[in-house]
Amino acid sequence: MSQYKDLTKSELEKLQEALLVKYDSIKAKGLALDMSRGKPGNEQLDLSMGLYDVLEPNDYKGADGVDCRNYGGPDGIPEIRQIFADILEVDDTELIIGGNSSLTLMYESLMAQKLSSQNQQKRKFLCPSPGYDRHFAITEYLGYEMIPIKMTLNGPDMAEIEEYAKDPLVAGVWCVPKFSNPQGVVYTDETIRKFAKLKPAAADFRIIWDNAYCIHAFDGETPKILNLLEECKRVGNYDLPLMYTSFSKVTFPGAAVAAMAASPANVAKIRKHLSYQLICQDKMNQLRHARLFKNADGVYEHMKKHAEILKPRFEAVLSALTGLDEKGIGAWFAPKGGYFVSFDAMPGTATKIVKLCAEAGVITTPAGAAFPYGNDPLDRNIRIAPTFPSSEQLKQAMELFCVAVELVSVQKLLEN
Amino acid sequence: MSQYKDLTKSELEKLQEALLVKYDSIKAKGLALDMSRGKPGNEQLDLSMGLYDVLEPNDYKGADGVDCRNYGGPDGIPEIRQIFADILEVDDTELIIGGNSSLTLMYESLMAQKLSSQNQQKRKFLCPSPGYDRHFAITEYLGYEMIPIKMTLNGPDMAEIEEYAKDPLVAGVWCVPKFSNPQGVVYTDETIRKFAKLKPAAADFRIIWDNAYCIHAFDGETPKILNLLEECKRVGNYDLPLMYTSFSKVTFPGAAVAAMAASPANVAKIRKHLSYQLICQDKMNQLRHARLFKNADGVYEHMKKHAEILKPRFEAVLSALTGLDEKGIGAWFAPKGGYFVSFDAMPGTATKIVKLCAEAGVITTPAGAAFPYGNDPLDRNIRIAPTFPSSEQLKQAMELFCVAVELVSVQKLLEN
Repeated sequence: MSQYKDLTKSELEKLQEALLVKYDSIKAKGLALDMSRGKPGNEQLDLSMGLYDVLEPNDYKGADGVDCRNYGGPDGIPEIRQIFADILEVDDTELIIGGNSSLTLMYESLMAQKLSSQNQQKRKFLCPSPGYDRHFAITEYLGYEMIPIKMTLNGPDMAEIEEYAKDPLVAGVWCVPKFSNPQGVVYTDETIRKFAKLKPAAADFRIIWDNAYCIHAFDGETPKILNLLEECKRVGNYDLPLMYTSFSKVTFPGAAVAAMAASPANVAKIRKHLSYQLICQDKMNQLRHARLFKNADGVYEHMKKHAEILKPRFEAVLSALTGLDEKGIGAWFAPKGGYFVSFDAMPGTATKIVKLCAEAGVITTPAGAAFPYGNDPLDRNIRIAPTFPSSEQLKQAMELFCVAVELVSVQKLLEN
Repeated sequence: MSQYKDLTKSELEKLQEALLVKYDSIKAKGLALDMSRGKPGNEQLDLSMGLYDVLEPNDYKGADGVDCRNYGGPDGIPEIRQIFADILEVDDTELIIGGNSSLTLMYESLMAQKLSSQNQQKRKFLCPSPGYDRHFAITEYLGYEMIPIKMTLNGPDMAEIEEYAKDPLVAGVWCVPKFSNPQGVVYTDETIRKFAKLKPAAADFRIIWDNAYCIHAFDGETPKILNLLEECKRVGNYDLPLMYTSFSKVTFPGAAVAAMAASPANVAKIRKHLSYQLICQDKMNQLRHARLFKNADGVYEHMKKHAEILKPRFEAVLSALTGLDEKGIGAWFAPKGGYFVSFDAMPGTATKIVKLCAEAGVITTPAGAAFPYGNDPLDRNIRIAPTFPSSEQLKQAMELFCVAVELVSVQKLLEN
């Protein structure tokens, strides 16, 4: 098939006409589908119904004897600590058990930094982009100036990060090291070693290592990445990273358990910060999760069931996109885990594609959402979240998406 | 019986000797009891075991159709909103459903105020004292200067509050209006009307109305207090109060549901603030609570069972204290609800009484803890929390407590 850029004006006009007919016929179906957020589908949620009755009536104490029904035990029960220590590959002294959200732990980590910052000037934060919109929303809300950093297939552009880190106003960097949001790339060993050796000017600079998808491979074995905390410790940078994960996309989003890992000095500081706002986390929910999984291996087995459900969905998305590649009007990375496909359309077309999809009943994440201040300088990136719609809905949604990309691309070429 | 202050030196010396023998004999028992925190006892926790299996396998949707297992529904399910709206006597538009802690909602309310404050000077907060130590810890941590306000049997001294509120640096006031922590007093209508009519200089001044014990009467009907939000609205002060409550001492502390109520303008501001740190609250836990109680009446019925357990415990405490009153070495208010008895010993003796109790194995809240900066200017207030120990333990603990009060009082009188 020809690349669209090589078509003549009249060929493009003819194509446009055909695509409009196709678009209108899909629009007429009155779809109402949501591909905007990384929400598990019903089939995935059904995997964790064991949480409903996993507790026997006399089962309410953690291994340390703490009654999970009462106040106390702010550090969480030993069983859940062991599971998260194993998953994050850290020592018990490096662990904080959170509530139902790792995002909250990240927010509070930055808030603790902000409250103790001696620097009264507006500080800055490095934002590998495209990235996770909720990360950027936190930094913007807390008053940081956001600096976009180029993403590569190996992770963030480390030369850029090393350069910016020389500025004492730069307070940290956002990272999703495994199956990054939204591209799905996995940081290489070289990238992670460069992070570990970073020598930022600001003493309180932190690498916010959101390992949300650490066990979320859906295509083959979950890749092993270097343990940033261990690497940092080895090179004398123990206090540099703060690592996070959760069971949000393991059991029930919003009703799961989150955790973070860091040096004991960081753990002490953040535990103290958290102690002012909360007496203890929900230990009953920790107990339910600990009983359901028994140990980290139980979690890994559970994730294989998620993978079985997710793999065909991502295959459907990638197969639908293939035609666009041949036409030279789109590029993407084929992820082997995580929750998203990051689609790069022709520059200057993303906003219009998203709008056309929405008008025909398919919601994607807003164009630009994956960039600081919602500003995609090339207006080309669109995040696709294929997990929530049913397989049939996903097929319809992707058909519309591809027609919209084609139509807007043709219109763009006709403008030039 | 004689008042101790009327005894001669030699009578006091003889008494001291007898009390020392008594104290040593109790100490020899090697007690290990905790009366430090307002923790429900096991018998109370057992009342809520219905939460373990209240959900049927196909029951995971709120009345609005939201799947409680997934992300979404940041405002909470309609069922739990209705229950809290009824308990707080507010409209749905005035409600925010929180996570497992009303303390977190208070903390975040002050944080939202702090982040939006235009005033760069150190601001102040009014602290009716004795009060709740965790309230004061929040204000201290967030950098407010704390101003103690005298507590009376009608609530805080309103003349003091009206005077201080003229200072634009004063940002708010802490209140526990019903069964106050630690005294157990119930604010009168007159007090609440004065709060409603307050005209603080600072536009962002807020009354933090921690109605933690709103349905926690254990002796007779729960007293009806004026609805502060309604009163404020009526006199054109709608944005002045922020009201809070939770199920922490209804079901399982740390694993329950919290809520707050405020004007729609405040609700919008605080919802936005919360949205940066959390995708949604734990709707599964909301669903469990909604199914267990069905409606507010279900909650009220449940609280009667708590009352049956708590009434004899408080009676045991008050009966033990009676002897101290006759001796003129102690004063307290007999609460009809809440979780504490606030004991005022002779000035200058609280620290030593708490120390003697601790050395004999009974932990009370630290002396001074109920005052800003932990500083009880008269060193006389001790908070007693009678709910957690068993009845037998409570009897032993109160025996020790009374001996310690007598002994330290005698020693104090001998010093003079």
